[in-house]
Amino acid sequence: MVESSDDELTTLQRRRRPVVIVNTGDGKGKTTAACGLALRAWAQGWSVGVYQFVKSGKWHAGERAALEALGRLHEQTGEGGPVVWESLGTGRTGLRSQADADPEGLARAGWARVRELLAVQAHDLYVLDEFNHVLRRGWVDPSEVVDVLAARPGTQHVVITGRGAPPELVDAADIVTEMVKVRHVFDTGQRGQAGIEW
Amino acid sequence: MVESSDDELTTLQRRRRPVVIVNTGDGKGKTTAACGLALRAWAQGWSVGVYQFVKSGKWHAGERAALEALGRLHEQTGEGGPVVWESLGTGRTGLRSQADADPEGLARAGWARVRELLAVQAHDLYVLDEFNHVLRRGWVDPSEVVDVLAARPGTQHVVITGRGAPPELVDAADIVTEMVKVRHVFDTGQRGQAGIEW
Repeated sequence: MVESSDDELTTLQRRRRPVVIVNTGDGKGKTTAACGLALRAWAQGWSVGVYQFVKSGKWHAGERAALEALGRLHEQTGEGGPVVWESLGTGRTGLRSQADADPEGLARAGWARVRELLAVQAHDLYVLDEFNHVLRRGWVDPSEVVDVLAARPGTQHVVITGRGAPPELVDAADIVTEMVKVRHVFDTGQRGQAGIEW
Repeated sequence: MVESSDDELTTLQRRRRPVVIVNTGDGKGKTTAACGLALRAWAQGWSVGVYQFVKSGKWHAGERAALEALGRLHEQTGEGGPVVWESLGTGRTGLRSQADADPEGLARAGWARVRELLAVQAHDLYVLDEFNHVLRRGWVDPSEVVDVLAARPGTQHVVITGRGAPPELVDAADIVTEMVKVRHVFDTGQRGQAGIEW
């Protein structure tokens, strides 16, 4: 049965409509929720690409190890989908001195890379981790990002994380969630710990 | 070097302090963020247990498939840690009629099971998915849960998800994040889709 609505799309078309998801706010869970979405995508057999715009030591190392393990499982058994995780930003291994010298240049090159991947429909789900940081700094123009996202071909879903999502992006996104810190143990002197914070 | 603070714990002790994390609010990302934490835990070689208190058809099927795949990978190669995912609530396969008849009884039995697992230190990380729903309904007394969590032995981390976390739990938790809906495509008629919503 074909349903229709004001936009004259069928239910199936609406279900296949690509979405832009923004996880912002000062609370926990922006990146972890994006990685949870990557699990759903993997289970659907989708191609998942995680592009990390700010890398700092051990942060996100756990999610990366686990998602890359799922990607290897796909290669070996065909289960799930392929997974790529790339560090595009400052702190990148082997490029530390360059990164320290020119974080803006690295961020712009990273965005250029993502733009090319979108043009060739490289993945079904993209996680642009901490990309809001890049936009907030003015290293990449949010208007250009909104235009590129609006014009992306096919059915490519994009998740963008980081504090301080710019208004242009919030307006253009399909799903926007603000993670609000109600309480955090860090506030009372607790240190981060492996398995919980990274 | 041993650091100390007012509570006279060393840095290492503070880093190993077990935490209670609550993901609440009406926005997206409560369960997906919990599953992202499960990835971190898996990568540390921790034992992960996900206990789902409200199951409804296909929701969370993707996260479950992916985390269980990581669990099998651990069994086969030793990489990461073991993963268990159990449905304890209504909608449980094979118990549908019972579940429909007595959701409160199922929820109470589910909590009793988790309490026993905590007592024997079955896991390093527990995700009690939608447990806030159970607490909000009054099926399990939040005060009892807070007491059991406070008295749990060893280093067991517990993540509790769901809207409407009760005040007692919010007060007792170490990390509380409210996921606030800023915009959701559902609001404008979009339907959920595989890979994104489950």
